[in-house]
Amino acid sequence: MQITAIELCKLLNGTIEGDPDVVIKGPSKIEEGTPGTISFFANPKYESFIYTTKASALLIPREFKPTKEVASTLIRVDNVYGAISQLLDAFGHQPSKPKGISEHALVHDSVKAGDNLAVAEFVVIGEQVNIGNDVTIYPQVFIGKNVKIGSNVTLYPGVKIYHSCEIGDNCVIHSNTVIGGDGFGFLPKEDGTYTKVNHTGNVILEDDVEIGSNSTIDRATIGSTVIKKGAKLDNLIHIAHNVEIGYNTVIAAQTGIAGSTKIGDNCMIGGQCGFVGHIAIADGSKFQAKSGISSSIKEPNKEYYGYPVLRYSQYQRSYVHFKNLPQLAKRVLELEKKLAVLEQSSKTVI
Amino acid sequence: MQITAIELCKLLNGTIEGDPDVVIKGPSKIEEGTPGTISFFANPKYESFIYTTKASALLIPREFKPTKEVASTLIRVDNVYGAISQLLDAFGHQPSKPKGISEHALVHDSVKAGDNLAVAEFVVIGEQVNIGNDVTIYPQVFIGKNVKIGSNVTLYPGVKIYHSCEIGDNCVIHSNTVIGGDGFGFLPKEDGTYTKVNHTGNVILEDDVEIGSNSTIDRATIGSTVIKKGAKLDNLIHIAHNVEIGYNTVIAAQTGIAGSTKIGDNCMIGGQCGFVGHIAIADGSKFQAKSGISSSIKEPNKEYYGYPVLRYSQYQRSYVHFKNLPQLAKRVLELEKKLAVLEQSSKTVI
Amino acid sequence: MQITAIELCKLLNGTIEGDPDVVIKGPSKIEEGTPGTISFFANPKYESFIYTTKASALLIPREFKPTKEVASTLIRVDNVYGAISQLLDAFGHQPSKPKGISEHALVHDSVKAGDNLAVAEFVVIGEQVNIGNDVTIYPQVFIGKNVKIGSNVTLYPGVKIYHSCEIGDNCVIHSNTVIGGDGFGFLPKEDGTYTKVNHTGNVILEDDVEIGSNSTIDRATIGSTVIKKGAKLDNLIHIAHNVEIGYNTVIAAQTGIAGSTKIGDNCMIGGQCGFVGHIAIADGSKFQAKSGISSSIKEPNKEYYGYPVLRYSQYQRSYVHFKNLPQLAKRVLELEKKLAVLEQSSKTVI
Repeated sequence: MQITAIELCKLLNGTIEGDPDVVIKGPSKIEEGTPGTISFFANPKYESFIYTTKASALLIPREFKPTKEVASTLIRVDNVYGAISQLLDAFGHQPSKPKGISEHALVHDSVKAGDNLAVAEFVVIGEQVNIGNDVTIYPQVFIGKNVKIGSNVTLYPGVKIYHSCEIGDNCVIHSNTVIGGDGFGFLPKEDGTYTKVNHTGNVILEDDVEIGSNSTIDRATIGSTVIKKGAKLDNLIHIAHNVEIGYNTVIAAQTGIAGSTKIGDNCMIGGQCGFVGHIAIADGSKFQAKSGISSSIKEPNKEYYGYPVLRYSQYQRSYVHFKNLPQLAKRVLELEKKLAVLEQSSKTVI
Repeated sequence: MQITAIELCKLLNGTIEGDPDVVIKGPSKIEEGTPGTISFFANPKYESFIYTTKASALLIPREFKPTKEVASTLIRVDNVYGAISQLLDAFGHQPSKPKGISEHALVHDSVKAGDNLAVAEFVVIGEQVNIGNDVTIYPQVFIGKNVKIGSNVTLYPGVKIYHSCEIGDNCVIHSNTVIGGDGFGFLPKEDGTYTKVNHTGNVILEDDVEIGSNSTIDRATIGSTVIKKGAKLDNLIHIAHNVEIGYNTVIAAQTGIAGSTKIGDNCMIGGQCGFVGHIAIADGSKFQAKSGISSSIKEPNKEYYGYPVLRYSQYQRSYVHFKNLPQLAKRVLELEKKLAVLEQSSKTVI
Repeated sequence: MQITAIELCKLLNGTIEGDPDVVIKGPSKIEEGTPGTISFFANPKYESFIYTTKASALLIPREFKPTKEVASTLIRVDNVYGAISQLLDAFGHQPSKPKGISEHALVHDSVKAGDNLAVAEFVVIGEQVNIGNDVTIYPQVFIGKNVKIGSNVTLYPGVKIYHSCEIGDNCVIHSNTVIGGDGFGFLPKEDGTYTKVNHTGNVILEDDVEIGSNSTIDRATIGSTVIKKGAKLDNLIHIAHNVEIGYNTVIAAQTGIAGSTKIGDNCMIGGQCGFVGHIAIADGSKFQAKSGISSSIKEPNKEYYGYPVLRYSQYQRSYVHFKNLPQLAKRVLELEKKLAVLEQSSKTVI
């Protein structure tokens, strides 16, 4: 695809400054912009590149005022990130999707599927699996017995879905993620060994859920582990048995959530956070990366940080003093010495 | 399966209160109980649900005294978790296990196996592999040359076991876990690049070990990385080269243990803990989730918390003061001011 | 292979003490040494084993002075670790590599490859993939459309490489690692739901990169996520979209690096570290395991520790005082009481 700056500007509902006829063949990063590409400026950290980029055009916030001369054609838009997303859809090359059912896949006779099913090589689909329309299954995926899969679902190479789990419409699951493995449930016996607890439940991903690569969502002991509609999970995330993740909650990479914990709707959880089991987190809660959460949170829409978490600004304030603890300790020692002198002189006086 | 409450009560060695003849068709969670199911109450956090659940029957601790009226039939037992486990075994539906050796699996001619081997589709089993009785191998598993596998072992889809590793009896390994990858061993050269260290050792899982999904157990440089009998590991765990994990030690998800560290027997390790290399941890040690352990622990049976770890109660006490550091710093400043005033007046007096 | 101690000594450029003719059949760990093996001593923690090991020979640092009698033949060398590496190469048994192209692999007709390509069972290689010489691909690997792979590359079982990624010469990727999954990019909409951002970029691994098992390297939104020449990554690592990792940087297991962050050359990053997005880390920086890095680091070659990180020794000093915070708080309280008494008596005096 190639398009002039002015045509692109119209598509994005923007206003233009500079050469409207420059031809754009693809997107680029502002610090690596080359002639014939369009870059974007949204994060203030990258402002210096506006004045040095070789990109032929630049997407910028409508109200942004350059402080130096800019060589690129400027396209001003209200929402730069939204415009980039449109741009990437326009220029984006897609992977080649599998088409039809490979003769090297094993799809059980009892499987029921809608239109447009694509099943690639070395996929195994078990008994009684039920699949909607427009589902794309990449190579080496495993789908166990009785699994239900909605419409418009994409399963990337190596995804494993254990028996009886349910995947909603428009879900995307990236490579080597495991859905429905047994939860970590063992009962201690008197001799110190453990008995395994049978996990009779399943995992339910509601509609519009996306999960990154190499994540693990364990099946429930009883009932379901549930990821609600619109939630987005990154790579290498651990969701334990009987957890619930709320609507449109986003969770960054390497976070872990222990058994039976319920995360509210519209939460934003940074990478490498850890939640203990059997707690409930209020809607709209936000957690800084690496936070450790060991008790329930009832007040919605607050921000947290630390191990265990405090309110964001409280942790930051305390940490400033933590940095200066050696000095504080020295000041206390100094006070003790001076006070001793004063006490001595006070006694003398009295 | 369906069974009356009184029949179930006898199976579980319990005592019954309420309608003994109510019919139970399956288990449920207390907060989601429906007629025809049996729920359980074990964690005090869930007490309020006892009085509102729609479950027909409830498993409760023998000595529990309800504070309001309960609609469900009560079955009192000594050990609720043990009874649940029995219950789930009774009602649990199992995944459909593979049976026999799939014509779409590649099992090397030199493989020796006992009775009842099941090998599913797209599995590869290499030369000289030795397998016991009653072993079940799900699709897309890889087993390298010279691997030994005991009896009654289950390998879920996508498990990869590198050459020369040994898996004991009754082991269970969940999907996409990797056993025997090379350890992270590189020697720095003078020009800043690294030389790879050949890993000539292996991994040994002793009997009764269970490992969750997407975990990685690296092979030893020399000798063996060993997970001892009865140890249980959760998902996304990293065990480095030459580590030893003791008998019946349990490790929650996303914990990592660096090279050559030895974890004692009967330890309990929370999620996201990290252990540095070349240390030894005493038997029966317990670690709160997210703990960082940077030196050996010699005294057995103690509990730890923090980064780096302190004794559990010590970390908690210090953390309370950490929260209040801004106030403490303010108090010190106040003391300094007051003391200066006093010193001044003291000088005046003298 | 078997070899006498004196022959081995010559190979390693060492000097010998004790029986030069003892026959060595393989390596062992010093604490598990058996007759007929050679062990090594490099880490002072293991010194006591020098005097008790049953190993027939011992590699030790040239200048080391035993404090007791040693039964084993000693081979003194300048660089023990370097000598071990040579030793392991000499004695190391290799996995049986796949040879040729399996009839059970699916290699697209349009794939171009150099000499000596080995493709094992149930591998899928897509359209227009370009492969160098001496490449070994283990079972169940997936390689998407347009991927480029250099020479002398090894891909272990279950590796997944999405379309258009590039793998340099001499790269090694361990089992179930995923290269080129979509980055975690979603745009919030006004109704609280998210729109997925199309990821049009790719991943580039330059030459001599090794990556452990079950790691995830996400493709760039625009441009490339880049792991530079000679970098080594351990297991279960997360590298987000548009990250750059510098030359010869080593990263231990379970570390995560958020989007667009640039890590310098020759850095050493411990396990379970976390880096926020859009920061830059100076060359030669070192991070203690579990560190949290939330801002750019400009000064090269320094060492860091903590959450968020401080300079290594600063964190340690502050943490000592953290441990003693309850006592410090008590001392402040004591000061306040004494000062109140003094103030009172001072007023009395005045």
